[in-house]
Amino acid sequence: MTSVDSDDTGLLAPGWAGTPAASATGDTAYLRALLDAEAALTRAQADLGLAPAEAAAAVAEAADIARFDVRSLAERARGGGNPVIPLVADLTKAVGEEHGPYVHRGATSQDIMDTATMLVAVRTLDLVLADLDRIERALARLAAEHRDTAMPGRTLTQHAVPTTFGLKAAGWRSLVLDARDRLKAVRDGLPAQLGGAAGTLASFGVFGASDTRPLVAAYARELGLAEPLLPWHTLRTPVADLAGALAFAAGALGKTAVDVLTLARTEIAEVSEGSGGGSSAMPHKANPVRSTLISAAARRAPQLAATLYGSLAAEDERPAGAWHAEWEPLSDLLRLVAGAAGNAVELTEELRVHAGTMRRHLDLTHGLIVSERLAAELAPVLGRARAKELLTETAKRTYTEGRPLAELLAEKPELKDVDLADLTDPTRYTGSAGALTDRALERR
Amino acid sequence: MTSVDSDDTGLLAPGWAGTPAASATGDTAYLRALLDAEAALTRAQADLGLAPAEAAAAVAEAADIARFDVRSLAERARGGGNPVIPLVADLTKAVGEEHGPYVHRGATSQDIMDTATMLVAVRTLDLVLADLDRIERALARLAAEHRDTAMPGRTLTQHAVPTTFGLKAAGWRSLVLDARDRLKAVRDGLPAQLGGAAGTLASFGVFGASDTRPLVAAYARELGLAEPLLPWHTLRTPVADLAGALAFAAGALGKTAVDVLTLARTEIAEVSEGSGGGSSAMPHKANPVRSTLISAAARRAPQLAATLYGSLAAEDERPAGAWHAEWEPLSDLLRLVAGAAGNAVELTEELRVHAGTMRRHLDLTHGLIVSERLAAELAPVLGRARAKELLTETAKRTYTEGRPLAELLAEKPELKDVDLADLTDPTRYTGSAGALTDRALERR
Amino acid sequence: MTSVDSDDTGLLAPGWAGTPAASATGDTAYLRALLDAEAALTRAQADLGLAPAEAAAAVAEAADIARFDVRSLAERARGGGNPVIPLVADLTKAVGEEHGPYVHRGATSQDIMDTATMLVAVRTLDLVLADLDRIERALARLAAEHRDTAMPGRTLTQHAVPTTFGLKAAGWRSLVLDARDRLKAVRDGLPAQLGGAAGTLASFGVFGASDTRPLVAAYARELGLAEPLLPWHTLRTPVADLAGALAFAAGALGKTAVDVLTLARTEIAEVSEGSGGGSSAMPHKANPVRSTLISAAARRAPQLAATLYGSLAAEDERPAGAWHAEWEPLSDLLRLVAGAAGNAVELTEELRVHAGTMRRHLDLTHGLIVSERLAAELAPVLGRARAKELLTETAKRTYTEGRPLAELLAEKPELKDVDLADLTDPTRYTGSAGALTDRALERR
Amino acid sequence: MTSVDSDDTGLLAPGWAGTPAASATGDTAYLRALLDAEAALTRAQADLGLAPAEAAAAVAEAADIARFDVRSLAERARGGGNPVIPLVADLTKAVGEEHGPYVHRGATSQDIMDTATMLVAVRTLDLVLADLDRIERALARLAAEHRDTAMPGRTLTQHAVPTTFGLKAAGWRSLVLDARDRLKAVRDGLPAQLGGAAGTLASFGVFGASDTRPLVAAYARELGLAEPLLPWHTLRTPVADLAGALAFAAGALGKTAVDVLTLARTEIAEVSEGSGGGSSAMPHKANPVRSTLISAAARRAPQLAATLYGSLAAEDERPAGAWHAEWEPLSDLLRLVAGAAGNAVELTEELRVHAGTMRRHLDLTHGLIVSERLAAELAPVLGRARAKELLTETAKRTYTEGRPLAELLAEKPELKDVDLADLTDPTRYTGSAGALTDRALERR
Repeated sequence: MTSVDSDDTGLLAPGWAGTPAASATGDTAYLRALLDAEAALTRAQADLGLAPAEAAAAVAEAADIARFDVRSLAERARGGGNPVIPLVADLTKAVGEEHGPYVHRGATSQDIMDTATMLVAVRTLDLVLADLDRIERALARLAAEHRDTAMPGRTLTQHAVPTTFGLKAAGWRSLVLDARDRLKAVRDGLPAQLGGAAGTLASFGVFGASDTRPLVAAYARELGLAEPLLPWHTLRTPVADLAGALAFAAGALGKTAVDVLTLARTEIAEVSEGSGGGSSAMPHKANPVRSTLISAAARRAPQLAATLYGSLAAEDERPAGAWHAEWEPLSDLLRLVAGAAGNAVELTEELRVHAGTMRRHLDLTHGLIVSERLAAELAPVLGRARAKELLTETAKRTYTEGRPLAELLAEKPELKDVDLADLTDPTRYTGSAGALTDRALERR
Repeated sequence: MTSVDSDDTGLLAPGWAGTPAASATGDTAYLRALLDAEAALTRAQADLGLAPAEAAAAVAEAADIARFDVRSLAERARGGGNPVIPLVADLTKAVGEEHGPYVHRGATSQDIMDTATMLVAVRTLDLVLADLDRIERALARLAAEHRDTAMPGRTLTQHAVPTTFGLKAAGWRSLVLDARDRLKAVRDGLPAQLGGAAGTLASFGVFGASDTRPLVAAYARELGLAEPLLPWHTLRTPVADLAGALAFAAGALGKTAVDVLTLARTEIAEVSEGSGGGSSAMPHKANPVRSTLISAAARRAPQLAATLYGSLAAEDERPAGAWHAEWEPLSDLLRLVAGAAGNAVELTEELRVHAGTMRRHLDLTHGLIVSERLAAELAPVLGRARAKELLTETAKRTYTEGRPLAELLAEKPELKDVDLADLTDPTRYTGSAGALTDRALERR
Repeated sequence: MTSVDSDDTGLLAPGWAGTPAASATGDTAYLRALLDAEAALTRAQADLGLAPAEAAAAVAEAADIARFDVRSLAERARGGGNPVIPLVADLTKAVGEEHGPYVHRGATSQDIMDTATMLVAVRTLDLVLADLDRIERALARLAAEHRDTAMPGRTLTQHAVPTTFGLKAAGWRSLVLDARDRLKAVRDGLPAQLGGAAGTLASFGVFGASDTRPLVAAYARELGLAEPLLPWHTLRTPVADLAGALAFAAGALGKTAVDVLTLARTEIAEVSEGSGGGSSAMPHKANPVRSTLISAAARRAPQLAATLYGSLAAEDERPAGAWHAEWEPLSDLLRLVAGAAGNAVELTEELRVHAGTMRRHLDLTHGLIVSERLAAELAPVLGRARAKELLTETAKRTYTEGRPLAELLAEKPELKDVDLADLTDPTRYTGSAGALTDRALERR
Repeated sequence: MTSVDSDDTGLLAPGWAGTPAASATGDTAYLRALLDAEAALTRAQADLGLAPAEAAAAVAEAADIARFDVRSLAERARGGGNPVIPLVADLTKAVGEEHGPYVHRGATSQDIMDTATMLVAVRTLDLVLADLDRIERALARLAAEHRDTAMPGRTLTQHAVPTTFGLKAAGWRSLVLDARDRLKAVRDGLPAQLGGAAGTLASFGVFGASDTRPLVAAYARELGLAEPLLPWHTLRTPVADLAGALAFAAGALGKTAVDVLTLARTEIAEVSEGSGGGSSAMPHKANPVRSTLISAAARRAPQLAATLYGSLAAEDERPAGAWHAEWEPLSDLLRLVAGAAGNAVELTEELRVHAGTMRRHLDLTHGLIVSERLAAELAPVLGRARAKELLTETAKRTYTEGRPLAELLAEKPELKDVDLADLTDPTRYTGSAGALTDRALERR
């Protein structure tokens, strides 16, 4: 078995394999970001006159991903515990003797690794944010289109009172917007990392930066990242914020997914995925594959985030373990959420809504789905006690006799003046669903 | 064994037992909040003319916690799966026949439960925020006082280069401020919950609210909570936001705790807790108990938050399990963080810093702690290769001969013009630590 | 607000409040176990002649739970970070001057705390194991009774091929037996803890135990716990084993719960809980409350177990935080699982199975539920390609025309010799379900 | 960016990249196992006369990993949500028209996927078990060698009483043996999976297996896996057992790692890693990289296991999401533990123990480390009260005057007959450490 055997292309990950999420978070993306960070560091020093412009140019030229062997770097990372150590060796060699000393000058491995991670995060979040925009538009369309499509409201798995599919879709969208807002805010604040060996930036002073602030600012600017107030080697706010926002996003998309999984059940069939996954053995099956994969991501994200939150308690100036435990979970989380967003685009843009089935299901309880309304409306007419007695008795009979509540009530002389047709029509008991949908859609 | 035996007062929870955190999050606090929510609901209806003012007054009077038996409520919660069902029964009875029908009118259990949870969260967060203010002040004082107190910067458990205790304290404070900002933002947005049986507010329409928005607004206003855009029975942004901000806060305090645990070790002893926990058997022991308890909270919080993030994927209009799984973890998380904040107040206000020990430790590596500087400064003098060779050789001798690096270097004629006293003084190699501390302290 | 306000009786915990699980894991149960451990320690020393028999008697008498104030202990635990410190003070006082010195002699707080935790675990697991026995018997009865009750097999939410309710119940039971086996094995190996200040048992040597093994053995024997090979202050196998077995049990019961939640949906209604939770506002609702509460426990248990597994990496001879982080999660986990088992007893003993509905649902796909069989059986008759073509065409028509597959196939002359009645009867395509059920029921 | 960019070789994973753990758990290993499962299925059918021997031979020949494109499979897995669907298509094609129909005959994707996962698990666990054997031998050697090497016992970060490095190493080893026992037991019971579309094995009946048990047995035998009692598509005991045993193993190794990280601190330096990670900028640094990487694995494993435990609650006959959420966490967990075991081999085989430093540290508290003993031994001599008073006073003076306790006590006339040299010698207060070490080493 050669070492190539250990390469992963996502065979266990249909949620993101082969998608832009995979490329944005793969080893190559990280390598590219690591090289970007190194190049920016020398460039920032050159900008401030701390290094020759030629050195910056030489590093930028050498920092060409095609010249590096990611597998070799991965294997050599083992020695010192991080991939920046062999990368700096290779990059220094590539830059050559004259300008080699300017490579990585003054930095610690974590400066480059953290910065690269932020770059990967920004780049992946941009994919996610674009997808969330598509999703919210698709959901806005569904909500508007089905503003008045009545369906059973379900609580604790049972029909409760009617609702509308519009309100449901508007709710899904509101979570997507919440996710977008949180991811956007985090994305825009992700900082570059520069602290030197122990976060004092002392090495840069030796190299001429009497005030290190402009250097940090220049470095961040080169990379399009925020300027940090302090080196954050063990002040892991950016990572924790990513953890929270990504876990939120996974859960937000997960809400839509679990609803679709429920509504797509053979017995319910109120919605179906546009292109359900087929089954070779069972031609009639159209599995809700997008929802399944999103749901799987939502099951995993919280625990990945937990590991990242756990790494906040990182000892010393740079920790032995807490930091190293972040890399894969953060990359997994980015990838899972990006994959889930991609799946959710397809899911929401192609979702088929079966309004007729929804309408039929409103009658599944023979009218009891409006019993809340009847109890409230008949109390003033019959007196509270009599209304309750009447409903309890009639409700029982709907089950034993299998006849609709409306029909049974119509036989009661005491209700002859009541507009039973209206009172028992589930589509007329959707409350503020329409108004809520309208209001929710105003949010941008 | 009577049922009283099952009461918990925090015997397993020295992190919060007997503190304001306990009272703010205990069953009584929840019961009070549940009653507040019920009273506000009737009052809001009265405000809008949907219920008689007398009914609102009657409910408010009856919603007196002293009239309710929390144990009985807890036990009867089992039947329907939540405590609001028996509470409404008891409250309705307490209000009496005339106005009883106005109790809980139009609401579902989750409306009251979620609202009460938000009230408890707001009230507990106010305690936490007050404590975070004390902590940040204590840390600001420590940072300012020790702005120039040099100490070993440690990375991967080893001395790396010098840093200052001021910068360390300023870093701790910056995490505390980050926690404060996140908790404050979440706290101020926590919404009331009102949706009726399935989130359409339909029942309120029956009772006269043709437009339900003013009712929701009045209800939220009565409670001092934010007005929700949509009922959020299965749109759990507020709970997830709490989860994230609380896990962050636990980790932020945990960072300080793990650092103190390290620095308070018998061999290090650079800091000590003001009032260490004693040991009956070993009079010399002064255990860092505050840090230990904070650290324990930081170990638990991420997984509690994970459960809450997992509940985002809640099916239907109200879910069977995802919601129920939130109650205890959220209460635990509030309580843990509030307890940790209380402990951190004591920890930071009473922390003793042993600057002399820090200074002594800078010499533990016989001067190698400044080898980074020497390598950089000697390269231009001796040439890069020779400088490296010299340092490598001398570094080895510091170990084998146990003599300081400065002394060994002073014997080298080629360095006679170099100011070795300055170059090898660890207190003069703290880089931008002072400037970073100053800048960090400007943040409010 | 008096401190009594902070007492918890389980208002947020309908899953276990007011049940034996609550009493078995509450503060009083822990206090009792702590006192049991202290009494056993003195008794063991007396057994070996290391302490006077009178001292053992005096401690046993004083270790009467009625003499201790659990709230006061909880509050005083804060100082030293664990409740054993104030307990020893109170117990020593209660024992009196003469024999007071024999209280806790040679032990460290963790010896008593860990031992008490094991006692609580054993006592709670005995409740759980008894409940699991009832559950497995109820499930065995259901499986036997419904050995041949055909129902739709569902995969990825869609009807796949028929199965039987018997096989489903047998599967649930097999998980319950797996849980029982794991819990039983762990329960029987839970050890007493005795190591003294740092796990060397040195203090006991001072008090006369030249060989400490008999002392540890006597102590364990007194308590009915296993004798440990080594003090396990930071070798947390027993806690981790409990974590794993309890998380397993929660998930095992959770499997039944999620199936019942699905099958009890209004549209499916193939099973219903014996005593569904009612809804005041909606008389027709019968919520699957037992399943909901079990499902909530299953959502929480894995993360609680994660915290406990995380505490394996505990530094030194006794750790600062990892140990303290175990107490509440372990107690919560015991309580959650015991509560879930109690709920599962009711769920399984009272579950109502609607075989007629199951049968009807087998026709929901108009016969496509047996398409797998048809494809296989018709291939030899018609040739593989023709069989596939025929089925694909007919499958489409079942949807468009709404006619059963059997009827459409019967019109095909090429199938005139095929026993379509048999081939398309879903109840005749349950494979080895019966045999598997029989075999599974042989397991005891 | 071509799709190749998304390949991962472990750049973020110095804990396992480039090791046998990587190859054992990579996509290629899974693909090989998937093909092994398919080949075994046809072979088992041939064994029982249900398929022609030629078909079995044809499938075995075609199931050559070199003929399959793992990247393409990964990408096409997206459609149906698992990689078996495209794999069956490719394999069928590779087998050719005649025997193609025997490929995957009767199976469902999950049969193959689960079986392959078990194969990968067995193969990886064999690596882990071999490494654990080496680790326990290294630790046995260390424990025996340092049976009487006294060192400070540390509790809550403070020196408590003396212990020995032998006992510490024996404790580490006992956890390793616990891990080995748990992994071995789980490994030996890992079952093949065979259930067909919904776990009834119905399809195999159609193909001639009137009794499916021999088929399942033959299939399992071919693969060297255990025969399952029931299809376990949603009875996930094997996966949960793996989760628990792997999380245990990570934590067990993590215990050694956190101890080494502590003991290797610059100030403590009682042990050092054989080949510490160097730092380019700081030549004196020898980072404890093995421990760091093991510790990082221990931080991640519990949450990965939590996701797997969470998947126990899998609905229906095959679930939509719970199953899919297992794949990557299980593979990650296998890989992390295998990587950690590899690192622990190096760590323990090359660990350097500095007995002299340990001895010196016993004096760091000026003798107070034996105060427990003194209190116990002097009480009979001086009376309990006087002994306590004397020790408290002297303990204070050791700090203020910086003089050893033994010296101060020697000045007390009342102690002139006491053998203070013995009483205050920390190396004579290691209690049962030697005996415990001996006993622990008897365990095999």
